[in-house]
Amino acid sequence: MKIIHSVADLPRNLTGSVGFVPTMGAFHEGHLALMRRAKAENNHGVVSLFVNPKQFGAGEDFGRYPRDLDADAAMAEGAGADFLFAPTRDDVYPTDFVDVVVRGVTDRWEGAHRPGHFAGVATVVLKLFNLVRPDVAYFGQKDLQQCQVIRQMVDGLNVPVRLVIHPTVREADGLAMSSRNRYLSEEHRAKAPLLYACLIEAANAIRSGGNVASAEESGRSRLEQAGFLVEYFAAVSLPGMDPLTDLPGPEGTSAVIVAAKVGTTRLIDNVSL
Amino acid sequence: MKIIHSVADLPRNLTGSVGFVPTMGAFHEGHLALMRRAKAENNHGVVSLFVNPKQFGAGEDFGRYPRDLDADAAMAEGAGADFLFAPTRDDVYPTDFVDVVVRGVTDRWEGAHRPGHFAGVATVVLKLFNLVRPDVAYFGQKDLQQCQVIRQMVDGLNVPVRLVIHPTVREADGLAMSSRNRYLSEEHRAKAPLLYACLIEAANAIRSGGNVASAEESGRSRLEQAGFLVEYFAAVSLPGMDPLTDLPGPEGTSAVIVAAKVGTTRLIDNVSL
Repeated sequence: MKIIHSVADLPRNLTGSVGFVPTMGAFHEGHLALMRRAKAENNHGVVSLFVNPKQFGAGEDFGRYPRDLDADAAMAEGAGADFLFAPTRDDVYPTDFVDVVVRGVTDRWEGAHRPGHFAGVATVVLKLFNLVRPDVAYFGQKDLQQCQVIRQMVDGLNVPVRLVIHPTVREADGLAMSSRNRYLSEEHRAKAPLLYACLIEAANAIRSGGNVASAEESGRSRLEQAGFLVEYFAAVSLPGMDPLTDLPGPEGTSAVIVAAKVGTTRLIDNVSL
Repeated sequence: MKIIHSVADLPRNLTGSVGFVPTMGAFHEGHLALMRRAKAENNHGVVSLFVNPKQFGAGEDFGRYPRDLDADAAMAEGAGADFLFAPTRDDVYPTDFVDVVVRGVTDRWEGAHRPGHFAGVATVVLKLFNLVRPDVAYFGQKDLQQCQVIRQMVDGLNVPVRLVIHPTVREADGLAMSSRNRYLSEEHRAKAPLLYACLIEAANAIRSGGNVASAEESGRSRLEQAGFLVEYFAAVSLPGMDPLTDLPGPEGTSAVIVAAKVGTTRLIDNVSL
């Protein structure tokens, strides 16, 4: 695997298809699953590692976001990546006068709780697509709303990249893999799987015809009783991320989503309906 | 020359470089000069023709903008274009949830007088770049601020397209070629060259050390006395389009710009300092 720090060193005119996994590093099994799939489905696997300052809000964890290039490089190589692109801030932002603004799908949930977050995400993903020029790009379903935002960005700007959404990879106890899990104290780590348990419970209730608002309220209150600070717990339709008001449609057209803080760590997760 | 109406019919994997001229049709010698240059400097010349609704404001001339595909196709072919891409609105806007917003350079002049115009321009140009995937794209200097906006968009989003700004093509009496010149009555057409004359006068005054504000005021009042409704007449620095407050720097780093209405027709023009 080749580690690339400069745009000028990116491979051009590769023969065959390029599968791309954009990341912020701090790799876990979720990232590695994307990398393995990108390589399995393409001739070349390219991983980018860039902690994008523009998608962090004031008071968020940009400064303390985990960074360990050597460990990440070893893991990416183990997962079959051919290139690890770790650009400088100046390479990604030679100027900073442009925002890619996705309307609608960004209004609620993460968009409401993290103002500017999705403009930062959509902008940097488009930049990375323009730099790496992949055929296919891989994203994890854990960041469900991000996946919808990127889908809208790609469709809305006619970007010639195919998107693949890969299922969330979980710990044995159900906790969704996340780079932020390493912030959790032992006590909070023990509590964290309740997020997934509550999502499953709500999804089962809704799938079997239960009232959506009751299922949401039940999930929220069970988490609150366990000490979580719940930002949202909601059933939504896809791809618009609008609140689900009716019975869910076919599999994959809706989901239950949650964001909650346990201690100072903010976690998100979702399950398909 | 091949006329293409659908994205699916766009040529892919052309051998050699692609020079691209995005247009709204109603071709004149300015467009043809871009097309000839695109073909002369590349293996393939692609012209797009799409009257982009998103860059017209309410009350502007979207509905009456001149449209004549047959005449335009003949002219493009004569100028050496290999492909004329005339997509449908649905091809360009399969969805409409995304805006490319360029900050700073859009604040003044056309940006101030035509709210939303440059978001419409930046967005559609990026879409067309993503559809056509050219190596080089050609724009006319007549739309000077548009050129700066597209430059910022390309640099700011790491778009892999090289930009070429081609000098303004003028009628024998100095009037800048524009598709909107055909709106002019005979009387107004006779007056219209005064725009360029006033720009030249102001540029000469500033180049020879004259006061910038006096040169601007002189140009504005001469146009107003001739019956123009002047929206702005200003010396600006490039690429930021900020008001020029000091002596101009090296050739091409500043310009005098004007927008004025003669009758109901709004014209813009500029000369480099």
